[in-house]
Amino acid sequence: MSKRPDTPILDRVTGPDDLKRLSDAELHQLARELRAETISAVSETGGHLGAGLGVVELTVALHAVFDAPRDKIIWDVSHQCYPHKILTGRRDRIRTLRMEGGLSGFTKRSESPYDPFGAAHSSTSISAALGFAVARDLGGACETGHGDAIAVIGDGAMSAGMAYEALNNAGHLKKRLIVILNDNEMSIAPPTGALSNYLSRLYAEAPFQDLKAAAKGAVSLLPEPFREGAKRAKEMLKGMTVGGTLFEELGFSYVGPIDGHDLDQLLPVLRTVRQRATGPILIHAITKKGKGYGPAEDSADRGHARAKFDVVTGKQQKAPSNAPSYTRVFADALIQEAAGDPRICAVTAAMPDGTGLDLFAERYPSRCFDVGIAEQHGVTFCAGLAAGGMRPFCAMYSTFLQRGYDQVVHDVAIQRLPVRFAIDRAGLVGADGATHAGSYDIAYMANLPGMVVMAAADEAELKHMVATAAAHDSGPIAFRYPRGEGAGVEMPERGQVLEIGKGRMIRQGQGVALLSFGTRLSEVLKACEALEARGISPTVADARFAKPLDRNLILQLAAGHDALITIEEGAVGGFGSHVAQLLAEEGVFDRGLKYRSMVLPDIFIDQASPRAMYDVAALNAEHIEAKVLTVLGVETLGKRA
Amino acid sequence: MSKRPDTPILDRVTGPDDLKRLSDAELHQLARELRAETISAVSETGGHLGAGLGVVELTVALHAVFDAPRDKIIWDVSHQCYPHKILTGRRDRIRTLRMEGGLSGFTKRSESPYDPFGAAHSSTSISAALGFAVARDLGGACETGHGDAIAVIGDGAMSAGMAYEALNNAGHLKKRLIVILNDNEMSIAPPTGALSNYLSRLYAEAPFQDLKAAAKGAVSLLPEPFREGAKRAKEMLKGMTVGGTLFEELGFSYVGPIDGHDLDQLLPVLRTVRQRATGPILIHAITKKGKGYGPAEDSADRGHARAKFDVVTGKQQKAPSNAPSYTRVFADALIQEAAGDPRICAVTAAMPDGTGLDLFAERYPSRCFDVGIAEQHGVTFCAGLAAGGMRPFCAMYSTFLQRGYDQVVHDVAIQRLPVRFAIDRAGLVGADGATHAGSYDIAYMANLPGMVVMAAADEAELKHMVATAAAHDSGPIAFRYPRGEGAGVEMPERGQVLEIGKGRMIRQGQGVALLSFGTRLSEVLKACEALEARGISPTVADARFAKPLDRNLILQLAAGHDALITIEEGAVGGFGSHVAQLLAEEGVFDRGLKYRSMVLPDIFIDQASPRAMYDVAALNAEHIEAKVLTVLGVETLGKRA
Repeated sequence: MSKRPDTPILDRVTGPDDLKRLSDAELHQLARELRAETISAVSETGGHLGAGLGVVELTVALHAVFDAPRDKIIWDVSHQCYPHKILTGRRDRIRTLRMEGGLSGFTKRSESPYDPFGAAHSSTSISAALGFAVARDLGGACETGHGDAIAVIGDGAMSAGMAYEALNNAGHLKKRLIVILNDNEMSIAPPTGALSNYLSRLYAEAPFQDLKAAAKGAVSLLPEPFREGAKRAKEMLKGMTVGGTLFEELGFSYVGPIDGHDLDQLLPVLRTVRQRATGPILIHAITKKGKGYGPAEDSADRGHARAKFDVVTGKQQKAPSNAPSYTRVFADALIQEAAGDPRICAVTAAMPDGTGLDLFAERYPSRCFDVGIAEQHGVTFCAGLAAGGMRPFCAMYSTFLQRGYDQVVHDVAIQRLPVRFAIDRAGLVGADGATHAGSYDIAYMANLPGMVVMAAADEAELKHMVATAAAHDSGPIAFRYPRGEGAGVEMPERGQVLEIGKGRMIRQGQGVALLSFGTRLSEVLKACEALEARGISPTVADARFAKPLDRNLILQLAAGHDALITIEEGAVGGFGSHVAQLLAEEGVFDRGLKYRSMVLPDIFIDQASPRAMYDVAALNAEHIEAKVLTVLGVETLGKRA
Repeated sequence: MSKRPDTPILDRVTGPDDLKRLSDAELHQLARELRAETISAVSETGGHLGAGLGVVELTVALHAVFDAPRDKIIWDVSHQCYPHKILTGRRDRIRTLRMEGGLSGFTKRSESPYDPFGAAHSSTSISAALGFAVARDLGGACETGHGDAIAVIGDGAMSAGMAYEALNNAGHLKKRLIVILNDNEMSIAPPTGALSNYLSRLYAEAPFQDLKAAAKGAVSLLPEPFREGAKRAKEMLKGMTVGGTLFEELGFSYVGPIDGHDLDQLLPVLRTVRQRATGPILIHAITKKGKGYGPAEDSADRGHARAKFDVVTGKQQKAPSNAPSYTRVFADALIQEAAGDPRICAVTAAMPDGTGLDLFAERYPSRCFDVGIAEQHGVTFCAGLAAGGMRPFCAMYSTFLQRGYDQVVHDVAIQRLPVRFAIDRAGLVGADGATHAGSYDIAYMANLPGMVVMAAADEAELKHMVATAAAHDSGPIAFRYPRGEGAGVEMPERGQVLEIGKGRMIRQGQGVALLSFGTRLSEVLKACEALEARGISPTVADARFAKPLDRNLILQLAAGHDALITIEEGAVGGFGSHVAQLLAEEGVFDRGLKYRSMVLPDIFIDQASPRAMYDVAALNAEHIEAKVLTVLGVETLGKRA
């Protein structure tokens, strides 16, 4: 562990009120200490580093000028909230970030009154801030009182349709509302920085009318915005913000751009805004992700997410991996399939790395599309591609596909278009906690007519399912797989096309049948080992399909056993519910069957290790074992089921 | 029935190819005939009149200039597609619009090759068109060949986040793509029309570079856009489009504004665009909804949706109503509750009339918010309002709430905020068909931890549920109710606050228990009358809650009867699945229970009368009766279950 930094001023800060007593010079020093403390903390815990470093000065300035928790500071996505947590009474727990029982990696209402609105998915902050502003003006009673509503949103997040909808509504309602656009793609070169500094002071001292004129004048003196990189979203934003035309058209006053790392710009601008703003105002701050930490600044992702690392060298301590990740297996399999089928293309919504499509894009650049933070568009774009003769794989995390749900129903399923949904991060996800859990996709996909829904039991199965999806031309198909490493099984050279709606027998036993859907199969098999020791030998099957169900397999299992237990990593309404519906309609329950369905429990599960989360969910081998024993009426020591 | 119009030129048109042989003068005449035919047809069928009348000339021009079905014309929402259907070989069936077995009121892939992409929900057209354009350039094989991809989208639809996401992506990809902005709010006064006419010709004959300059010059000569009306979405659009700045920033060439009712502008502009366009281009056409039909033009909604009407007078033949609509009952009940609770406010996404919130807005203008076609923002805005101390009712149709699903999960449910979801148009909806069915809300809401989910059995129950939601401060709550009239039951003076998670016994019988969730209760009771004649006297209960379930009631029903049948208007995964999960976990199936769950079938049900749709769904009284008989093993004549 590296030596902790010296932080004499930060050590005296117990909350935002303490910042009000500091001179501007001390605030400068505080920002330096806050940056060092953030780096030090994340080096011990891992987590999102770059975003926080990009807003150190902004965080100091906001808490120095505004009066949280009365004023509501809402961090969009909230990857950037670590410095905010350090300044708002959570420094003592900052080294528990993203750990079980520790601080959340995101803002969270239940964690602190300084987090007025939790976040984790992108682009919600303006909507939420507008809600607070309207509630304030309507006289709503808020426990922490009502002051300003401030949304801090990145340029990437601003690209989502939801942010546009919110700006549109805010401009109409004309409530006092502050949006800070944290634009971290454009670096200001030193000479311009000096100019910007000068102009920024000028703005802050001038009335808003003049501010806007000054801003316009300033723009022509700035260098052309940095336009490289694949993300059109960000390019567009530059186009929109230079001069602030768009925001002004939307009814916002526009201030900027200002240097978001210069407290001598931030403090006077925020003070002026606080004093004078009447309607909605947008402050355009230019920041640098990873600012002030060399290894982050120098990396391609600017230190976006980091494992534990050495502060001096920046070297990360990643655990050695035993098996390829599911994401990697998906990507490799898709690349393989695409070699033989020129119709195959792939779509991601701003997650090329997370979905593995960065690898696909390397191999097939013209067939890979990053649509930005735009799941709604992404899904319907896939529908259009499919209608036009292509065979798109729409690769999204389970939790983010929720954003494109209506498009899945309306544009894909109703039209029976051959879009293939690669649903990553299905089930529980670990450190990202409840907001990122993929709990609902089985339920929300499997009741759509014509949709095929698969879950991979291991990484070899995933490869087969990619091949199966690639071969399925008659309609939409979805396959889900979890975060993390595979089980380490032997990988086939090629994925085999599975028969649609056919499960597979894993082991033939008697008395009780365990029907697994997805990667809990390995836990089911572990449970069987323990049960064998008790003389119980369950039958095990891998359903592979939640839709269409393997009716024969399920009815045979039901007919040939006293008990049938389904296991899935999803909420009620999914696989087990479809099985129950089949059993009911076929009259199987009439005759009596010990039927149980193990699903995710009816709670949002907080961050922890995946294993610990499965313990909470009661979906590990011991829970499966206990469930079998209880169902069979076998006495056990203690209560485990 | 009015006399049919004389349509000598239209009579010779069997498909778009015929338009290519007409002179421009004949196309003018064709447009007049097409307008008359559209009015005549809708007078007989009812349907969306105003939108179609607004695009008569545009439809003629598109089909005269472009080569459908090779060129893909994609109508956004597609309320405006009737003239298109008349010109594309469907004139002989145009008087079957929205009827069972007749033409869909929307574009539909399965109906015609001239409908390359179906629609009904707003703002999908640019995403779909971009998909076609990319598929074309990647060499995708499309049955009808590949030509231009053309999206026709209204100014209202352009306000949705999804459209913005699509523009953003299209500008990046730089594919040849044509977007026609059908802007029907700004009326062009005659003098300006002449100017616009002149300029439009000028544009069409000039290279695009000059076009843009001319367009900019033209703008200063145009009158200020019409800015009245509540919808900021449309106001904003004006701001964006004047000069086309935003679209140009997004990478689009911009042409306009042109008079969308003047073929002498439309034809040359479209011909030029077809000849010369390389990348994405946006044509801004000004049109008038209801154009050319006085009774539509003069009405507040410009003839948006009409019952059958008399062509000469415009008078609609609406069926007399027996009971207030559920929508009206909701609105009245909410107004009543709001009188006693100043925290109550209401949010609609561009459906103030459809949700009844227009009435609420009349009474409480400062507490009612129309956020535009923006369900994502709308839901999170509600979450912000709730966090700020208000008690928002988020009133959306079931099918449209799908657009805000992630926000329901991430911003409302995880944070346990007291947002009240008033889910209108739950279940089957009749003439609007499959795209508007509210089939999934029970499933997608009831598996969210902490969500309370209710369904009203009749309009008095709805009133109670509004009161119950108003009193439920500890977290989110949802209640669903169908399209159409109530059952005509006596209405209570005030809604009563129901006990959360408690159902109600309707009648005590024996042998079989029918547990209804929602308005199918009346059919259940009809079935009971028929069953009584056979000596079968079922017990009937109204569950009221899908979450939390009334465990005691359900377990008692299961224990006291041989058979238990649930009935709901929703897909599998909803109420019945939660009941099955409870019964399984409680070991009820171990001992044997004739359990059945009647749900919507696994098909998308086409438009028809509601009763006919319920027949297809097998959810009418006779189906319930037959199900009981089958479950009880009573022989019946014929097969009905």
